[in-house]
Amino acid sequence: MSIDILCEKIIKKQNPTVLGLDPLLSYIPESILENAKAGNKNLFEAAADAIFQFNKGLIDATCEIIPAVKPQAAYYELYGPEGMAAYKKTIGYAKEKGLYVIADVKRGDIGSTAAAYAKAYLGKTELFGESESAFDCDCCTVSPYLGSDGIIPFIDICKEENKSIFMLVKTSNDSSGELQDLSADGQSIYKKMAVLAEKLGEGTTGKYGYSACGAVVGATYPAQLRELRSFAPHTFFLVPGYGAQGAGASDVAGGFDSRGLGAIVNSSRGIICAYKAAGMSAENYKEAAAGEAENMKKALLGAVGGKIG
Amino acid sequence: MSIDILCEKIIKKQNPTVLGLDPLLSYIPESILENAKAGNKNLFEAAADAIFQFNKGLIDATCEIIPAVKPQAAYYELYGPEGMAAYKKTIGYAKEKGLYVIADVKRGDIGSTAAAYAKAYLGKTELFGESESAFDCDCCTVSPYLGSDGIIPFIDICKEENKSIFMLVKTSNDSSGELQDLSADGQSIYKKMAVLAEKLGEGTTGKYGYSACGAVVGATYPAQLRELRSFAPHTFFLVPGYGAQGAGASDVAGGFDSRGLGAIVNSSRGIICAYKAAGMSAENYKEAAAGEAENMKKALLGAVGGKIG
Repeated sequence: MSIDILCEKIIKKQNPTVLGLDPLLSYIPESILENAKAGNKNLFEAAADAIFQFNKGLIDATCEIIPAVKPQAAYYELYGPEGMAAYKKTIGYAKEKGLYVIADVKRGDIGSTAAAYAKAYLGKTELFGESESAFDCDCCTVSPYLGSDGIIPFIDICKEENKSIFMLVKTSNDSSGELQDLSADGQSIYKKMAVLAEKLGEGTTGKYGYSACGAVVGATYPAQLRELRSFAPHTFFLVPGYGAQGAGASDVAGGFDSRGLGAIVNSSRGIICAYKAAGMSAENYKEAAAGEAENMKKALLGAVGGKIG
Repeated sequence: MSIDILCEKIIKKQNPTVLGLDPLLSYIPESILENAKAGNKNLFEAAADAIFQFNKGLIDATCEIIPAVKPQAAYYELYGPEGMAAYKKTIGYAKEKGLYVIADVKRGDIGSTAAAYAKAYLGKTELFGESESAFDCDCCTVSPYLGSDGIIPFIDICKEENKSIFMLVKTSNDSSGELQDLSADGQSIYKKMAVLAEKLGEGTTGKYGYSACGAVVGATYPAQLRELRSFAPHTFFLVPGYGAQGAGASDVAGGFDSRGLGAIVNSSRGIICAYKAAGMSAENYKEAAAGEAENMKKALLGAVGGKIG
């Protein structure tokens, strides 16, 4: 099971951190930008090149510390098709370095369209009688607004290709409660979505007790995170909101099970822009990222009692 | 106002149809596929080339009949970064032909990420001190699961750049009710989302009375479509589900106002694969598409009383 692979990487590195690769040109050191501009004819190509070089540096600096990366598609689509080429290249490089890759795409659509997205990010594309992977990730995020028939095509591909997904349940942003905290028949929407995740994951539970259908639950809502951990015992959590969004290690502690498994905590700007908080030049972004990744590992390990697995 | 531009194109062509450009290689005539394979080194490039040529044929055949196109991103992401290049090229070609372009991407994320998506599809990307449009659409679809702070960055770009969005409200698929029909405080989720669309659209109402924040409401739920038309009077509707998904002209009639405005009805496979229903060869896809576009125009005009505007 794909989620077992993630658990094993977390245990091996004793670190439940996922590095969010959300690059903007404004974060990238001048030396990389200058090289990229010099080596490319058009600005989108130069931007995509700079982003890949920046990501490569982050992956090189942290791949011995962290088990997984989560490139956020928005920051690549922002740079057009060239940006999406950098997305694919980043995914490939991260896999080469042994990292578990979660495509943060939050796709959700009607059945046949959801199947196309699932094939694009987790499966294979039919091409003139051959088949190749368009993006070839281990996992992606999905949105449940359309109900189960927007999610099932992803689960089908997870089963075929040994992949996994994280479904949005309780997101980390301020206004997440506007829809997700509404109560229908005495139960919140986010709990209903957790029930759906448990149901859709049935039959895919791996050796650590978690299924191919995980959930996104924000660190910025620690009470709900703790509540959902016992409420959805087979659902692995992707936990955004740590660091730049304001949550700390004590906020995420409730998301883990007694083995220190069951959740992986994302940090994006906290790591990729660690040089800023450290008062360092952007040129030192790799050392700063590695340092912050070590700090986060220690903080999370502390929060789960010092040992995972 | 961008939505006024859409209204004017609908009135000029007396046709409230949007052509859904959801291409799959299996729909495309052998002659296009062969040319694309012969002219490209790798299979993704060949697929992207075939898709663009197919779309170009559809746009050429229907651009005098229809006012708008809606390329569905999933069917381009399926072909990787090369597919996204075909997406951009399709958008550019459709605009060149005077069509209003709705990017069906259903994006939705936390604030800063939503802003990146909004810039990618509707706004401009900052590139080394310059700014260029990554995809340059007139409009895109967005998902409201994260609440208003996932939508507001799109509205902000709509105001800056004179663009518009359609927010998912009541989708056309079978399981849409699982979440959208739940009742909280005596009101369905889809009605609450319609209230949100009305609210977010405030201050952007154009001369036809509609705002920059439209809604997706499926033709497969005619009672809800009719109900929402009066419930959300400033919200323009994008109506999927006509044709291949089973709804007909009488089902969509309730989505229009007394002028025949207020809604645009999508058909994807019904037009792009019209050659199949007509028992024609795929080589005749253009004629078949034009024929079906004319049929749909007549049916919709009939449903709104023979005249729009």
